[in-house]
Amino acid sequence: MPPSSSDKVIICKAAVAWVAGEELVMEEVEVAPPQPHEIRIKVICTSLCGSDLSAWESQTIFPRIFGHEASGVVESIGEGVTEFKEGDHVLTVFTGECMNCRQCKSNRSNVCSVLGLERRGLMHSDQKTRFSIKGKPVYHYCAVSSFSEYTVVHSGCAVKVDPQAPLEKLCLLSCGVATGLGAAWNVADVSRGSTVVIFGLGTLGLSVAQGAKLKGAARVIGVDINPEKAIKAKDFGVHEFLNPKDFQEPIPQVIKKMTDGGADYCFECVGDAGVVTTALQSCCDGWGLTVTLGVPKGKPEISAHYGLLLTGRTLKGTMFGGWRPKSDLPSLVDKYLNKEIQVDELITHNLPFENINEAFNLMKEGKCLRCVIHMPK
Amino acid sequence: MPPSSSDKVIICKAAVAWVAGEELVMEEVEVAPPQPHEIRIKVICTSLCGSDLSAWESQTIFPRIFGHEASGVVESIGEGVTEFKEGDHVLTVFTGECMNCRQCKSNRSNVCSVLGLERRGLMHSDQKTRFSIKGKPVYHYCAVSSFSEYTVVHSGCAVKVDPQAPLEKLCLLSCGVATGLGAAWNVADVSRGSTVVIFGLGTLGLSVAQGAKLKGAARVIGVDINPEKAIKAKDFGVHEFLNPKDFQEPIPQVIKKMTDGGADYCFECVGDAGVVTTALQSCCDGWGLTVTLGVPKGKPEISAHYGLLLTGRTLKGTMFGGWRPKSDLPSLVDKYLNKEIQVDELITHNLPFENINEAFNLMKEGKCLRCVIHMPK
Repeated sequence: MPPSSSDKVIICKAAVAWVAGEELVMEEVEVAPPQPHEIRIKVICTSLCGSDLSAWESQTIFPRIFGHEASGVVESIGEGVTEFKEGDHVLTVFTGECMNCRQCKSNRSNVCSVLGLERRGLMHSDQKTRFSIKGKPVYHYCAVSSFSEYTVVHSGCAVKVDPQAPLEKLCLLSCGVATGLGAAWNVADVSRGSTVVIFGLGTLGLSVAQGAKLKGAARVIGVDINPEKAIKAKDFGVHEFLNPKDFQEPIPQVIKKMTDGGADYCFECVGDAGVVTTALQSCCDGWGLTVTLGVPKGKPEISAHYGLLLTGRTLKGTMFGGWRPKSDLPSLVDKYLNKEIQVDELITHNLPFENINEAFNLMKEGKCLRCVIHMPK
Repeated sequence: MPPSSSDKVIICKAAVAWVAGEELVMEEVEVAPPQPHEIRIKVICTSLCGSDLSAWESQTIFPRIFGHEASGVVESIGEGVTEFKEGDHVLTVFTGECMNCRQCKSNRSNVCSVLGLERRGLMHSDQKTRFSIKGKPVYHYCAVSSFSEYTVVHSGCAVKVDPQAPLEKLCLLSCGVATGLGAAWNVADVSRGSTVVIFGLGTLGLSVAQGAKLKGAARVIGVDINPEKAIKAKDFGVHEFLNPKDFQEPIPQVIKKMTDGGADYCFECVGDAGVVTTALQSCCDGWGLTVTLGVPKGKPEISAHYGLLLTGRTLKGTMFGGWRPKSDLPSLVDKYLNKEIQVDELITHNLPFENINEAFNLMKEGKCLRCVIHMPK
């Protein structure tokens, strides 16, 4: 085992966001040693996810290092860490698993009360940052901050993976692909022969499509206002493509006509509260289920006429597709290695770290699915 | 078998609503013979339900005969009716079961596409009324209109019941009690040892409590702004009573503290869109389920912060507790006859038909649970 460097500050490059929506700036940052129960990771690859983009555009905590969908190698471990050793291959996870809280112990939740979504840009354990520039704190994002050559995460926010698995692809399982597959499998449990409508055909939506196809859905309808999304969608099991702009009447009516009263399942993968309502309107009476996966960029209030519920619909939300990261993610990696799930096909772009702003532009313009950012070797 | 009188108009007394919110007027009405696939019922008892009250206060179709929670005896049958004969004891149901539509055939829905909720005050088959006063139409309510000595319903909107069962109690199974029990059993499927919070402790809420108790819920918390509701609640399995007026802080926070993060199940039985939000806020991350049973009197839009869903909550609605009326109601009647469920205990008042306005006043003032109205013999 190589000696741990856990008492040393590392100085490395990070893409720092100084102002909401303005280009990231490549800075030299200090990365503090991992504190107890933390690990420091040399990031290998990080892919850009829609929620990085919307947080960067809308949030108020700056300076900040975004990035949460990543793979890497453990560089050093903090006191008390027994699960990892230097050199382990890991995926980061934006929602941790402490294994001890009511939620984790329930075996039916992935919303850890201790290491759940961190919104203030601080480490869970001491509410401080591990990043600084000339001694001044730089804030974390989603407990990961992978737009840095090195990052520190709580040991509950990383998952050890098979060292044979290619880290430059695997990072997609750290958020988007897993979330979509899990929404179809764990949250909706799509039934064989059913009709599924997916709103938003980005990585999230296509992963839902893939998940639905693997569960035997008979009909998968994809909805997106970007007609270019139609092409890739077919490869992921989307049978029919609807662009709301092509229709005079509201899309729920179009879908109801197409499906004899509404879909069995609708998935909101856009991140828009209004689309959640549209999705609920598009699923059928009696057993229609709408699953909301996206994180709204604007208005966070979802509204629905009570009649939609009274007639038997269900609205269900999920974070990370219901996967308990530590308990469940290794099985997804296995599925990838066994070629049971498509991941590589979602990577439309590969960019070196220094071109990270290009990845943001591609995503803003809807021109990529996943853009994998490769850190310097 | 007595001869059918299905070709004759019956003239009888009905309590007619002429104007929203104004006292019902006892009128002589003409009740037309049942048309094909309809039956005419001599109403025996009808109990007043909260949704009669809110429809009477807020709806616009008049003159109208309200009442939908009722028991009676078949007086005559229309052409093609094979399921009923004169003299059969029946419960009316406000949502029918045609047995042939996508919903009915699914075996997992009670929202019949053909005989579902009727909102225009007309018969399903020909969009006309069977009631008139001096030839002018008087509108139906919820396909039942039991505030009349005789009424005509589609044969899909009545359920034959054991003639041994007391019709003067059984009418409660026609809506409120069944809805509450079904919400706990069919919709939420309350699990043993769980924590349940019920908002609104009327007949609906107490029936949920009863249902939760029978499923082995460990802790049932009842919430109502009427302190008088606390007394009866105990008898139905409510362990703790909360009056929001007694607390400075919002009730979801009170409940979260009491329950280590929120209830497993919340039930909205008030009929208020805002309370649906409160209920959703009061259930726990991960698996918290809110079931909405009430029909909002005012604002029909339910709103919820997407974060409540993202963290794993589910919002589910139900009409008639998920029971398929014809398929399932007889089993509930059996449970009543076997003393497995409490029904009689919800009857706080009995009134003769001519005093029906008193029942409305009692309910408006929150002074009754169920008031059974007895038709003249």
